Parts: sequence; C-alpha cells; structure tokens
Amino acid sequence: MNINGTPTRTLRAHPGQRLIDIIDQTRLPHALHWLRVATLDEAAHAIRAMQVRGAPLIGATAAYGLAIALSSDASNTHLQHAAEVLRSTRPTAVNLHWALARMESLLQPLAAEQRCAAAWLEAGAIAEEDVLQNAAIGQHGLAIFRQIRHRQPGTLNIMTHCNAGWLATVDWGTALSPVYAAHDAGLAVHVWVSETRPRNQGLLTAWELAQHGVPHTLIADNAAGILMRSGHVDAVIVGADRIAANGDVANKVGTYLKALSCADNNVPFYVAAPRSTLDFACPDGASIPIEEREADEFRRVHGLDAHGALSALQQLPVGEAVANPAFDVTPARLVTAIITERGACPPDQLTTLYPEHADA
Amino acid sequence: MNINGTPTRTLRAHPGQRLIDIIDQTRLPHALHWLRVATLDEAAHAIRAMQVRGAPLIGATAAYGLAIALSSDASNTHLQHAAEVLRSTRPTAVNLHWALARMESLLQPLAAEQRCAAAWLEAGAIAEEDVLQNAAIGQHGLAIFRQIRHRQPGTLNIMTHCNAGWLATVDWGTALSPVYAAHDAGLAVHVWVSETRPRNQGLLTAWELAQHGVPHTLIADNAAGILMRSGHVDAVIVGADRIAANGDVANKVGTYLKALSCADNNVPFYVAAPRSTLDFACPDGASIPIEEREADEFRRVHGLDAHGALSALQQLPVGEAVANPAFDVTPARLVTAIITERGACPPDQLTTLYPEHADA
Repeated sequence: MNINGTPTRTLRAHPGQRLIDIIDQTRLPHALHWLRVATLDEAAHAIRAMQVRGAPLIGATAAYGLAIALSSDASNTHLQHAAEVLRSTRPTAVNLHWALARMESLLQPLAAEQRCAAAWLEAGAIAEEDVLQNAAIGQHGLAIFRQIRHRQPGTLNIMTHCNAGWLATVDWGTALSPVYAAHDAGLAVHVWVSETRPRNQGLLTAWELAQHGVPHTLIADNAAGILMRSGHVDAVIVGADRIAANGDVANKVGTYLKALSCADNNVPFYVAAPRSTLDFACPDGASIPIEEREADEFRRVHGLDAHGALSALQQLPVGEAVANPAFDVTPARLVTAIITERGACPPDQLTTLYPEHADA
Repeated sequence: MNINGTPTRTLRAHPGQRLIDIIDQTRLPHALHWLRVATLDEAAHAIRAMQVRGAPLIGATAAYGLAIALSSDASNTHLQHAAEVLRSTRPTAVNLHWALARMESLLQPLAAEQRCAAAWLEAGAIAEEDVLQNAAIGQHGLAIFRQIRHRQPGTLNIMTHCNAGWLATVDWGTALSPVYAAHDAGLAVHVWVSETRPRNQGLLTAWELAQHGVPHTLIADNAAGILMRSGHVDAVIVGADRIAANGDVANKVGTYLKALSCADNNVPFYVAAPRSTLDFACPDGASIPIEEREADEFRRVHGLDAHGALSALQQLPVGEAVANPAFDVTPARLVTAIITERGACPPDQLTTLYPEHADA
C-alpha cells in the first residue's frame, strides 16, 4: 500500500537492532504513529491491547515477538516461556497459534546459538508469505468481482465489516485485497464500511481506503440490512480469525448478522483468508474459543476534543453491566465461498484447495 | 414509572399555563433535565432534535404542540400551518400523523374560540389513552412471557433494541411494558440491551431499567447473533414506528437483523405497539418512508469528560462520507406476534384484533 505515495508495510523489521516498528492502531484514524517494539512484553502488550490487530498481522507480530525474545535469551526454557506469553494474548485468531507453532517447530531442534538468527529469518519469511498470499487473494477475489460486474454493470457496491485490510496484515489485506485489486484494475468500486462497534475498526477501514483513493461510505452496523434490502449491496466480503474444517467462520462480532442478511437478500457473502487462518484440526465453529473482552472498551468512547487532541469520554454511568464478546461464528451454510491464496471454493470444500488435509 | 420512588410521566402538561414540560432525552443517561416547551417552534424542535423520541411520545408531544400553537392563534390557517410544521418533523413514525389527523378532524369543524380549550383536552385524552394502552400491552405481553417461562424455567432473558420503554411513551412503554409487568409480578427477568448505534438509545433503556430495578446488560448491536446462537436469549421484543396492514414492521435500524437472527435460532420475535402505530392505509413495508438522518449524529460521540461534564468528541475525520438511515423494515414473515392493547396476534392477522379495518 502507498501512504502519501510511499510504499509502506504495517510492520518494519530491523533484525540488526533486534526490534520492530509497528503502527499504533489505537490512535488511528486520528494519528499515524509508529511504535517501537523491543521486548517480549512490548510485543505481547501490542497484541493484547490491539495496537496491532487483524489475524494475519497478529501472527506476524507474534513471530517477530519470539525473535525479539530470543535475542536476549535463546535457551529452550525461554523459547517455551516466550511462546506461552505470546500465545495467551488472544484466544480466537488461529494465525497466532499457527505462527508460533511454526516458529517453535523450526527453532526447538536448533542449538541455542543458532536460534536467534533463525528466528529473525523465519519471522521475515512469515511476513513475506503473508504479503504474497494476500496479493494472490486479491487476484482471485478480483476474478469474482469481475463476474458480478459482468451480470450487473455499473459501480460495484461491496460491503465489509471490521478491518481486514492493509492494517490487518503485513500488506494488502485479506478482504480488502480484492477491493484494491479491483480499484487498481479500473473497476468502479464503492465500499460500505461498517462501523464495527465496540472498537470501531470500520474507522481504520475508512482511513486506509481513503489513503488508496477508494470511494467508500461509513454506516452504523445496524444499517447493513436495509442497504441490502434496498438493493444497494452487490457483495459482502470479510476476513476471518479462524475457519474450521467444515467451513464455519469465526470473525469479528456482527459478521453472522451480515451473513444472515445476505442470505435473506440473495447477496453473495465471501470470506477471504490465507492458509494460516484455516484450522483443519478444528472440526466446526462450536469448537472455536470466543474471546470476551473487557467492558471498558464499551464504556469509553474515543475521538478528538475541541483542541484536536485524542481524548476519551465516559459513555456509560459507572456500574452499568456490559457483555462484550469480540467474535461470532458464521455457519458454513451462509458462506458463498472462501477465497484463499490458492483460489475460491465453497466453504465445505476446503480440501479441494488443500488436498494435503483431505484426511484431517 | 417511579423515578426515585415518585410516580412520573415523561410529559407534564400545564394547560392553565399553555405549556408542557418534557425530559430532554439527549442529555440522558447523564442528566435528568426537564425542558419547558411553550411555542410551536419549540415543540417541533423537540421532536426533530430527538429531545423527545419514541413513536407514541412523538404523537402525544405533537398533539400538545398543536394545542400550544392554537393558544396564540386559533384560526383555521394557523391550525393548518401548525399541523404542517409538526407533521414535517419526522417521516417514519405514523403516530405523529395519527395524532395530528385526530386533532385536526376534531378541531377543524369547531369555531375558533372553542379550538384552544378543545385542543388541550384532546391532547390530554391522547396522552391518557397512551398510558392505558401501554398498561394493557404489558398484561398481554406478560401472559406470553409466562408461557415461555412455563416451557423454560429459570430467569427469562429478553433482548430489546432501541428504547421502546417509559421514555418512548407517556408511561410504561410498549416493548418494555411487559418487562416491567413481569418484574412487578415477581418473574425473574433479565434484559439484553442493544446499544442502538448511532444514537445509542440503548443507554436510555439501560437507564430506565435501572430506575425500576430490572436486571440488564448492555451489548453492542453486533453481539445479538452470538448471544442467540449460544442460547442466552428466550425472546426478543421491540417497539415499532409504523406497522403496515400486512404486518411488515418499520422500527429503529438494526431491528431487521435481530429478527433474522431470531428466525435462524428459533427465538420468538415480538413487536409491541398501540393502535396508533398501525397504519391500515399502508399496504406493506415497501410503502413506508424511511428517514435518512444527518451524518453528524454519527460523526460525533457523546459522554462525560474528565470533569463529569457532558461533552462531544469528533469520532470521524472531517470529510468522511456517512449514510445514516434511521429505520429498517422487518418483513411480517419474521414476526412471531404483534402485541397491541387488544391482545396478541400473528402479524398477518391484525384485522382479527381490529375487525373495523377488515375491509381496508
């Protein structure tokens, strides 16, 4: 992605200095602020506090977090400790577990003095693969968008939920990668951006679409239904935090409601995700752990005050009880297709794209 | 309803002084502030700016607004002008049109010198009827809740959307009237309160439930689906802004998504509304005008600052486009029953409750 005309990734690794720079996403869309991550605790905090977020970016950040941890102590004990600290930051996105498992299985057999260099190389490989896979998702999604456009000429109206764009990955995004590919290919595309309460990640999506010049309109999450019923949505595309073997999809809370509305209005519903989001060991959505986040992210609202400073307001009287599940599960029957770096398929046919898991 | 132990209505009429007092709902839940309405413009502004809101309360306020207007000028021209000003404040809630039509058809034939007194009496009658009808809705809804409780013992978990409680009416509420009736009858009841972006009327619902001591939990609108899928919701009950002759229901945007989720999870979906919300002249939901409100109510968020003062923050960068439909239509096929002051019936059988409209 270009930010102010300069190609930019969401994560900058500095292996020579044993640290990385990330964008503090809690300050967007109001400020683009880079944050230095130089310790295991800083990496874990960045993931837990959602300074970095989005399943693929969480995976890459965790891999680098392990490399950072090994830079001070490459012992086997510390490797296990660091992996455990990072693994416990967030429960739902499987990319975190996938990236850590991949790092551990490579690093465990190595001698301690080899581990640090190998960890930085492998984290870099995970980040590079993410970029390439997302670019491939973009092309597969673009082919689908062209088919829809062929049936219904005019501007393609795409709805998305949460942020599954550049900011949720190392580059390009998952759900937004086809949108950028379509825009860059000259297709007229407009995006309905769902606010995504309570953390308002829709504002991140609006910000990055604006950076790339893609026309878009923000809506309350509640408005998805009426827009579909009135024929203003040609397709919905979202990312995922974990896709079970049967095609059930865990994604940001509210995704399931959009999928229901798609089914009721004959609007296709697509899920875009790389291999690292597929959990073939998980039989179905009921087996996916759903993160319950703290009530405070609902109680307090953020924005700019009269002086242009980022500030928080108390939205709720103290003492009001809040329930705050961060994800929901969309059953496979509501998903038109899953788009991965290998192509698109119906949700119950993932093993046609990944035959190596056919017996899983 | 009791506020601090004192029976209180949301609207206090002072016919002798030719004015009314209303609660400024834009300052709740942070402050309970009564506002004096003494002119036609103040009445129209109160409705348009949502200082009063909720279809039944809008109707009663409009009736009193007409009485206030006639207090300074009871001519036929001014009657028509005042009705037009009030009618144009908000397009979707039919109670507004119903109340004004009822007032006009009574007042038009009268001599000018009789109109003012008659207007105050009729507005009072509309307010009284609202209270009695809502109390009846409460008893009919309570009977339904008892049946559900009979099948599933334990605390009854009711979900609602927006505010269709005491604050949306002159007293008791529509959707919340059965909840209060259940609580007062000793049934263990807990309410899932949907935030209701972008205007956050869920905070009003939480506030009034707290005043009455009804256990409740606030949730993001997005969380409705996962709570139903995980079996935590026994029924959804909402109010309505207009119900068409075929049973299609216009209500606060996001209602349709909850109804879809109910249908997908075998959770009954009830709509509670008095006669004044039924529009037998409107054949179906597609004929109901949907209000598009200004983007600013999405761009700015409200709460208490560090000094405890009600304050607003800029949530979106200036220039971000916003679409803000205020209502959506839930098709009759998704509605289990409509509960009115005459009882409950399937949505396509309203004329069994209102046989006088069987030929409409």
